[in-house]
Amino acid sequence: MNQKEYIEKNKDRFLDELVEWLKIPSVSADSKHKEDVKKAAEFARQSLLKAGVDNAEICETAGHPIVYGEKLIDSSLPTVLVYGHYDVQPPDPLDLWNSPPFEPMIKDGKIYARGSSDDKGQVYMHVKALETMVNTNTLTCNIKFMIEGEEEVGSDNLGIFVSENKEKLKADVILISDTSIINNETPSITAGLRGLSYMEVEVVGPNRDLHSGVYGGAVNNPLNVLCEMIAKLKDEDGKITIPGFYDKVQELTKEERELMAKQPFDIHDYKSDLGVEDVFGEKGYSTIERTGIRPTLDVNGIWGGYIGEGAKTVLPSKASAKISMRLVPNQDTDEIADLFSNHFKSLAPKSVKVKVTKHHGGQPVVTDIYSSAFLAASEAFKEAWGKEPIPTREGGSIPIVALFREKLGLDSVLLGFGLDSDALHSPNEHYGLFNFYKGIETISLFYKYFKG
Amino acid sequence: MNQKEYIEKNKDRFLDELVEWLKIPSVSADSKHKEDVKKAAEFARQSLLKAGVDNAEICETAGHPIVYGEKLIDSSLPTVLVYGHYDVQPPDPLDLWNSPPFEPMIKDGKIYARGSSDDKGQVYMHVKALETMVNTNTLTCNIKFMIEGEEEVGSDNLGIFVSENKEKLKADVILISDTSIINNETPSITAGLRGLSYMEVEVVGPNRDLHSGVYGGAVNNPLNVLCEMIAKLKDEDGKITIPGFYDKVQELTKEERELMAKQPFDIHDYKSDLGVEDVFGEKGYSTIERTGIRPTLDVNGIWGGYIGEGAKTVLPSKASAKISMRLVPNQDTDEIADLFSNHFKSLAPKSVKVKVTKHHGGQPVVTDIYSSAFLAASEAFKEAWGKEPIPTREGGSIPIVALFREKLGLDSVLLGFGLDSDALHSPNEHYGLFNFYKGIETISLFYKYFKG
Repeated sequence: MNQKEYIEKNKDRFLDELVEWLKIPSVSADSKHKEDVKKAAEFARQSLLKAGVDNAEICETAGHPIVYGEKLIDSSLPTVLVYGHYDVQPPDPLDLWNSPPFEPMIKDGKIYARGSSDDKGQVYMHVKALETMVNTNTLTCNIKFMIEGEEEVGSDNLGIFVSENKEKLKADVILISDTSIINNETPSITAGLRGLSYMEVEVVGPNRDLHSGVYGGAVNNPLNVLCEMIAKLKDEDGKITIPGFYDKVQELTKEERELMAKQPFDIHDYKSDLGVEDVFGEKGYSTIERTGIRPTLDVNGIWGGYIGEGAKTVLPSKASAKISMRLVPNQDTDEIADLFSNHFKSLAPKSVKVKVTKHHGGQPVVTDIYSSAFLAASEAFKEAWGKEPIPTREGGSIPIVALFREKLGLDSVLLGFGLDSDALHSPNEHYGLFNFYKGIETISLFYKYFKG
Repeated sequence: MNQKEYIEKNKDRFLDELVEWLKIPSVSADSKHKEDVKKAAEFARQSLLKAGVDNAEICETAGHPIVYGEKLIDSSLPTVLVYGHYDVQPPDPLDLWNSPPFEPMIKDGKIYARGSSDDKGQVYMHVKALETMVNTNTLTCNIKFMIEGEEEVGSDNLGIFVSENKEKLKADVILISDTSIINNETPSITAGLRGLSYMEVEVVGPNRDLHSGVYGGAVNNPLNVLCEMIAKLKDEDGKITIPGFYDKVQELTKEERELMAKQPFDIHDYKSDLGVEDVFGEKGYSTIERTGIRPTLDVNGIWGGYIGEGAKTVLPSKASAKISMRLVPNQDTDEIADLFSNHFKSLAPKSVKVKVTKHHGGQPVVTDIYSSAFLAASEAFKEAWGKEPIPTREGGSIPIVALFREKLGLDSVLLGFGLDSDALHSPNEHYGLFNFYKGIETISLFYKYFKG
């Protein structure tokens, strides 16, 4: 039986297994789910063992555990380190899900569940690719798995683990499926990822909530102030106004921008898919450029005052927001966090106090599209899809790609099979069954072409 | 026994009774508390009966009921209609209360509980004043009580009730205790109240929550947009920028402003009480003027995106805020609501949709300080406090004062005994026992001086 036949024969079981994993609400950001996260890790370990690794272990960290497994067949052969994560984003807002986030539902050729695309569904393709290669005697590389449980909260303990296990993690390349292709007719490989700086700000006015009638007009309202400060972070052209913010942004050449413009993209479809009458972003750049090669600043959450039913005439003591910036080469996550922090504080009037704290961040990366691993991935795509994949720049961040380069000296190939429309981080996250099976096939072929 | 002796003799019982009323969480804004609101109404009815009214009834409305009671002693004597409310503000944020909001706590001469000052504590002074007058044979007016349960949510059904019961509510003046005095050494009577327009806005961008990495930079973020729109509602001098907003604002004369400036007020104490380094408000006006004779615009609540623990990189579909404006004579609540609505919508970029809804509002009022009722109140203060009360303008709104004038042709006297520091609408709301007892005494004396 060849790889393709093996996948076809076992496809229902592959999906059933994934469904079981998706049922575990491994929300890393929420301490209520600590035990679920543990359970999802153990599920991953068991899955690796069943797929044919020599051994698999749960590696404890200061936070959520890392699952490590390996199948070492021949030290003269190249070694591939597969990275992924088994933790998922919080499912809120729950009321917008058509089916419960942790009760996977298969509908219209897609599996709906939190984590279906990001990243359990994509990790599971690697597990099943291993099983496929083992059972069809086509494994031609050593293979290591490192599946973490803190990707959605900043991978804080992964860096420590990597530093402490350099020998164990020795490999020739890292393979990661946590990105998207352009569409199911247009395969692509992500060649660049944005970085991230994620901040939380708090504006404090009076020492208690006040009656807006008694004090309104005379005491500065932290909610108004927060809005005014946030509004000042961008100008009318969508440029971020933080001094020094763009200083290290790598500008692309005219040729590179022309190449990007050739990607299939229809702005009408894009707008109609999102239900917006117009897009908006940094002046002078296209939508693809705005999400690929330009940095951003987005408010991810805001809260303060009375948010219940009806009306309450309160002048609140505090206002808060979560604000994140996507970064591009060669911006530095810590430097941008500091620039933000200093600038934001400088915007505060004397009538309020401001606190800025840093959540996790990540460095932006660009990968080498001429490396042997990238070329092997291209060949795998050509064989499985009958088309050469297009190298793209993706807007999201996988902070650990920069970390792996720094700590392990290893490049990553971002062999993702999701779609931008998968509703990652949103209600009704889903993953196409076509993508799931085609991914297993493509990944299995990668090993054939990868010679180290 | 004279009034003062009677109050002194019964003071502990008066307080115990009030405590029982304060234990009922009659939060009118929250439908969960519908039964509690009913219970508080029944408590009010029973209290009136015990205090000596001839009859007291629960009057059902489309919303929460109104408690009506009357003691008619002689049709040739003047009639006083006492208005108050038994509903309270929501107690959120609960974690900032030092003792639970519905478990009244007496500490340092104050009673801490939601509603202690606004308005159960103040209404109860009238109930106990009636009891005092009845039991000391000093009642020299007919007296009617109308205690509603929807003041904190806009008194929507009170207008209907008043219109339908004009005969029943016939009186010479309305007496309301829902305001403050300057301080316990400086008695005052509120001669002006601001009006209110209370709006809720929703900004909708994409039709679903998006991944801020995949879409950030290319799709306008409703949270950023909401902040930008709110920021545009005021300029750097604290002036509200809504076209036409100030058109009908009554400017005070130089003499009137000089008189206001004579009120005892210490800006250092004010700032240190609130814990702010600086105050902020409309340029060209003092703090007293900003809260008394100038209109305002405050964000009372804002929410959207991810507001849980940790970090979530979401570009949310929706952002919302509650925004209210305090109005001064001769601004009109409906007109201002319309001006706001039109202007706010005009600020929206094409990339979002905006919805504006109106919550309750109220007209601003100024009362006649030379009316016989106002003068009777002044005399009562002089006798009880040994000082002439100062007429003040208060920042809060009691929308029904304008309604009473319109529907019943009656003026109100705002005989409130609270303090601005009572933490109305805030955690740890409280009411001074001194104010409670002195209020009963002053109210009882009002009837002696009021000759219709």
